[in-house]
Amino acid sequence: MLIRFAGLGLGAASFTTIFAASSNNTNVVDPSYDASKFMAEPVTPRSTLIKDKDDMKVKMELFIMKIQAEFCRALENEEDPSKKFFVDRWTRSEGGGGVTCVLQDGKTFEKAGVNVSVVHGVLPVDAVRQMKARGKDLVGKELPFFAAGISSVIHPSNPHVPTVHFNYRYFEVTQENGEKMWWFGGGTDLTPYYLVEEDVRHFHSTLKKACDSHDRGYYQKFKKWCDDYFLVSHRNERRGVGGIFFDDFDGKSSEDCFEFVKSCAESVVPSYVPLVNKHRNDPYTSAERDWQLLRRGRYVEFNLVYDRGTKFGLYTPGARIESILMSLPVYAKWEYMHSPPDGTPEAKLTEILKNPKEWI
Amino acid sequence: MLIRFAGLGLGAASFTTIFAASSNNTNVVDPSYDASKFMAEPVTPRSTLIKDKDDMKVKMELFIMKIQAEFCRALENEEDPSKKFFVDRWTRSEGGGGVTCVLQDGKTFEKAGVNVSVVHGVLPVDAVRQMKARGKDLVGKELPFFAAGISSVIHPSNPHVPTVHFNYRYFEVTQENGEKMWWFGGGTDLTPYYLVEEDVRHFHSTLKKACDSHDRGYYQKFKKWCDDYFLVSHRNERRGVGGIFFDDFDGKSSEDCFEFVKSCAESVVPSYVPLVNKHRNDPYTSAERDWQLLRRGRYVEFNLVYDRGTKFGLYTPGARIESILMSLPVYAKWEYMHSPPDGTPEAKLTEILKNPKEWI
Repeated sequence: MLIRFAGLGLGAASFTTIFAASSNNTNVVDPSYDASKFMAEPVTPRSTLIKDKDDMKVKMELFIMKIQAEFCRALENEEDPSKKFFVDRWTRSEGGGGVTCVLQDGKTFEKAGVNVSVVHGVLPVDAVRQMKARGKDLVGKELPFFAAGISSVIHPSNPHVPTVHFNYRYFEVTQENGEKMWWFGGGTDLTPYYLVEEDVRHFHSTLKKACDSHDRGYYQKFKKWCDDYFLVSHRNERRGVGGIFFDDFDGKSSEDCFEFVKSCAESVVPSYVPLVNKHRNDPYTSAERDWQLLRRGRYVEFNLVYDRGTKFGLYTPGARIESILMSLPVYAKWEYMHSPPDGTPEAKLTEILKNPKEWI
Repeated sequence: MLIRFAGLGLGAASFTTIFAASSNNTNVVDPSYDASKFMAEPVTPRSTLIKDKDDMKVKMELFIMKIQAEFCRALENEEDPSKKFFVDRWTRSEGGGGVTCVLQDGKTFEKAGVNVSVVHGVLPVDAVRQMKARGKDLVGKELPFFAAGISSVIHPSNPHVPTVHFNYRYFEVTQENGEKMWWFGGGTDLTPYYLVEEDVRHFHSTLKKACDSHDRGYYQKFKKWCDDYFLVSHRNERRGVGGIFFDDFDGKSSEDCFEFVKSCAESVVPSYVPLVNKHRNDPYTSAERDWQLLRRGRYVEFNLVYDRGTKFGLYTPGARIESILMSLPVYAKWEYMHSPPDGTPEAKLTEILKNPKEWI
């Protein structure tokens, strides 16, 4: 395994290359972890990353740093060349930190956020409660935990380009009895403002391919989970056309689980970026922009009222609020009793949000 | 007591005047309940309103219908004469209904909502939990309840006009053991975008006067409760400069409590409308408009993440979502890491939101 570190923001002179020999296969140089391409220095100190290279905590951190960089670069390719991601590396006094990448007020992207966080410490009661609600029956009140995750929401400027969200995360919690629990979670879901069925099929097919390479039953199961999870209950409508979602994923070995999560996260660029490229220059009306803002209001409703990730964040002491709420759009709109007239493209989308369908 | 009913929307011909003789004082004609001035027909049938005129449920309903009309008319006086409140009278299949008045895209008011609801039925577990969190220790899981309340949020167009919210409500719950509990709750609070200390003092003084006429200790107590309640915890800032807030108010006789609630609700127009009149034509810049939208984003955060009224609404089956979420602004904005530069009026406001002060 090759781990290269670039002292980002320090100029080329500080570039460092470190060969970390894998205990099993000293000759494999894995270009996945060419750290010189990361958006910033990883959160965990280099010495730990090398020493604990076989620990899942380290593997996940390096992987999400790689995904962050690949996704940010792919988005920048769709943006005005003068506009690049702003990179904010932060630390959390309670333990760990993160790398938040934001591109705001771009030509293609009104707000694009790609956040990596690698945090550890003690999990407070409220956060434990958030996890218990997910079916994790944890023993104890304040538990040592580790969480590494990548989370991203992309709000494009053009209403014909859908919003995408993805989040992949790895948790470890040590219970009062000393038992260590671990699990993965995550998902990718699409929120179009106008329905182009071909695009939705492309998106779902790409995710299905990633799932199928691990288990032929995953896509169906995680597609349904996604439809159930991203529900704005008080309106009885989904926030978008779904994708995949899973949590408490720990059935097989952590290696097997990790491989699946890798496939999912690696499918984000091919599932989404072609849709950006296809529609970013589509003409649109101010009425279409208005509809996009109204749908973004619903997105805000989901994120603030229901999303467990947001709640987990808001209840974690020392959480970085700006990184958590980065998922909110620049602009959102609410109109009393707005309802699109029958037969319009807006009504067609609404119908799908109320009655999710099979896409493939 | 005089109760007049106008069959609103049915034309003048259906106007009806009903003299309901008060059992104690048949000669008093109370103009407070000139129902011909209501925005719509009350929720409860006329026959019940007359038959049960001494029941607090009826008294509260008629009172909030009166307050709704007075407030709406006072706001219309500050608006372009062609722009009037849209009146939506609705019923709830589970029991009761409401009257929602909305004025949107006005010259003075970007969105003004004044909602009366009078609902009854069975309180589900989730709603019971919302109430228990307020300190009400209710016995049972599904309890018969009655709730009558007025709730209003005014989002003006001009960033120099503050937003106001008020809500006054009366609850009755019958526990499993047959015991009936009742209480009042409510409050009025101000959310300026730019701080004009004189205005805030006027607002607080008007509320204090209403409180003082009942108990010299109320203002101080309910002012603090307001500062504590309208806290956006995850940002450690209040949503505005406060006002008064109270809940579980049942110490004295229900008559005494009602008189206090009446004084509070009647102080809304004199506390707020002069500020609208003073600033509605103030010149403003697009940067000031932007700041207003960012603050409205925080308002959305409070309402969707913390507000118990909103949560109670979202968890009540058959709740009218559009009336509950009417409190959200037309437009809101989120910017990553926005922070006003030191010494600016925006920074001055932020400082007060982080450290609430005594105004009188």
